[in-house]
Amino acid sequence: MARSTVSHEAGAIYEFTPDLEALETVDSGAQLTIDTRDSLDGAVQSDSDVLESVPEEVNAATGPIAVSDAKPGDILRVEIEAVRLTEDHGRVVTIDGFGLLDGDEAIEAPRTRMTPVEGGGDDKQTIAFGDLEVPVEPVIGTIGVAPDAESYTTLVPHDHGGNLDTTDITAGNTVYFPVFQEGALLAMGDCKAAMADGEMCGTGAEIACEIDVTLEVIGGNDAAVDLKRPLVETDDAWKPIASAETLEEACKLANRDAIALLAAAHDLDETEAYMLSSLTGGLEISQVVDPLVTVRNAIPKASLSAPF
Amino acid sequence: MARSTVSHEAGAIYEFTPDLEALETVDSGAQLTIDTRDSLDGAVQSDSDVLESVPEEVNAATGPIAVSDAKPGDILRVEIEAVRLTEDHGRVVTIDGFGLLDGDEAIEAPRTRMTPVEGGGDDKQTIAFGDLEVPVEPVIGTIGVAPDAESYTTLVPHDHGGNLDTTDITAGNTVYFPVFQEGALLAMGDCKAAMADGEMCGTGAEIACEIDVTLEVIGGNDAAVDLKRPLVETDDAWKPIASAETLEEACKLANRDAIALLAAAHDLDETEAYMLSSLTGGLEISQVVDPLVTVRNAIPKASLSAPF
Repeated sequence: MARSTVSHEAGAIYEFTPDLEALETVDSGAQLTIDTRDSLDGAVQSDSDVLESVPEEVNAATGPIAVSDAKPGDILRVEIEAVRLTEDHGRVVTIDGFGLLDGDEAIEAPRTRMTPVEGGGDDKQTIAFGDLEVPVEPVIGTIGVAPDAESYTTLVPHDHGGNLDTTDITAGNTVYFPVFQEGALLAMGDCKAAMADGEMCGTGAEIACEIDVTLEVIGGNDAAVDLKRPLVETDDAWKPIASAETLEEACKLANRDAIALLAAAHDLDETEAYMLSSLTGGLEISQVVDPLVTVRNAIPKASLSAPF
Repeated sequence: MARSTVSHEAGAIYEFTPDLEALETVDSGAQLTIDTRDSLDGAVQSDSDVLESVPEEVNAATGPIAVSDAKPGDILRVEIEAVRLTEDHGRVVTIDGFGLLDGDEAIEAPRTRMTPVEGGGDDKQTIAFGDLEVPVEPVIGTIGVAPDAESYTTLVPHDHGGNLDTTDITAGNTVYFPVFQEGALLAMGDCKAAMADGEMCGTGAEIACEIDVTLEVIGGNDAAVDLKRPLVETDDAWKPIASAETLEEACKLANRDAIALLAAAHDLDETEAYMLSSLTGGLEISQVVDPLVTVRNAIPKASLSAPF
């Protein structure tokens, strides 16, 4: 079956709102290629293009895509088959007022460094950072669904997803979202050619990409737990993802979600599940720079069967 | 060469102070086996042994061991060759007033769960948690040297090390400490049969262990950077470790240390090194429960040669 393509040129959003209007509607099971532009909308094309402040609109998310039979209480499964770079340069920037070390006098902002993409074909792609080479490991920075009641710009992560900046959201992995609105209304963009856990300077190597996904709706009744926030499945782990004002608060939310999964899977009370969560896998930092910060709690698949 | 053994029965400390007195003195290059007792000093031997509060003395650290030619400004290299369990049960506990979800009404404290050790010989060891099996992956929870000016109980992590509760501090890896006092004065204990990144409930599976290490002094002048805090070397990464009041503050310290390493290795200014740190490896959570919390910043060895 040929994949249909959804392009950012047809539609992209800068805010996840409860009343998003679908750009396109597909059935559960649809295989799509989603074309995204870079998080800075092409504004940075050389080292001399610096950003004096965070643009009012960033992280354009291609979509929204409605899945025809998704209803509130369901779960949207997004299997990510591939993330391909579609330009030959990424860019890393510092911006005054943004980033982990914002205000540190040793750090200069604004600054821009273009990161040319090298290799490809049979060779693994890299990006050049000056004389150095960094392996290309693409990340989808912003991905989410229409939220329950509040609206969130694409700079902000929350329970609907959004600017999660989580390195595990990449080819080969699957992300699950709670469905809050009819059709779910998925959108994604803000890809990086490479990004560290933490995204300390405020960006990875921001780059346009196209993404192959398969979308599937899971009935809420088929789930072992009530999914409140995004969950990512990697080869070897399940990882609830939580965003909050502080890392401590995000850790608590992600750990509570991990406890709910472990308790349901093994018929444990919450204290036992908490103890078990303290023995294997553990807390991981997604990003520490967006207006809310994001943490995940990895649970190895050896300790947890599929919850849906 | 036969290893000499240093046993907790000969000496163990509950506080890292600047004026520690050596239990034993060895030369640089010494290969030792260090015998440790469990972090709770054997007080918990069944599920009915619960802890009403954090004991005044915990995390007994075997030592201190002076290395005869270590002087302030030097670096102590601790290569960890093996960590062997020396009892057949670990224990996980919740304690009122302690742990990430302390005060959460779904969590019961105090509670204790003994975790019997199973397997061994040709089979990989596991601990049993009820019907579940968790792989044994030992961690040295508390390891450090005599601090510069302040004293820290073995419950607290800081720039001297101490209660770092970092899963990478295990067999096969090497930890580097700044030397603050003549002889460095190393001590370690508080091992776990298994522990999640975060150590959410406040403990891993606490257990007595013996640890094989090789100690070596590196002259401060041989280092590319001024080491301020512990640094762990794994198979594939260098990871500065930092502890602070909040995870945000610990992230900043660990990231600044990573930036110093990257800047020195590649002759980058700090802004470039900050940008590079945002592209590869990244921030990792060690523990979120001790009186200070601990984070590390992984830099893949592909991006950083040995700093000493």
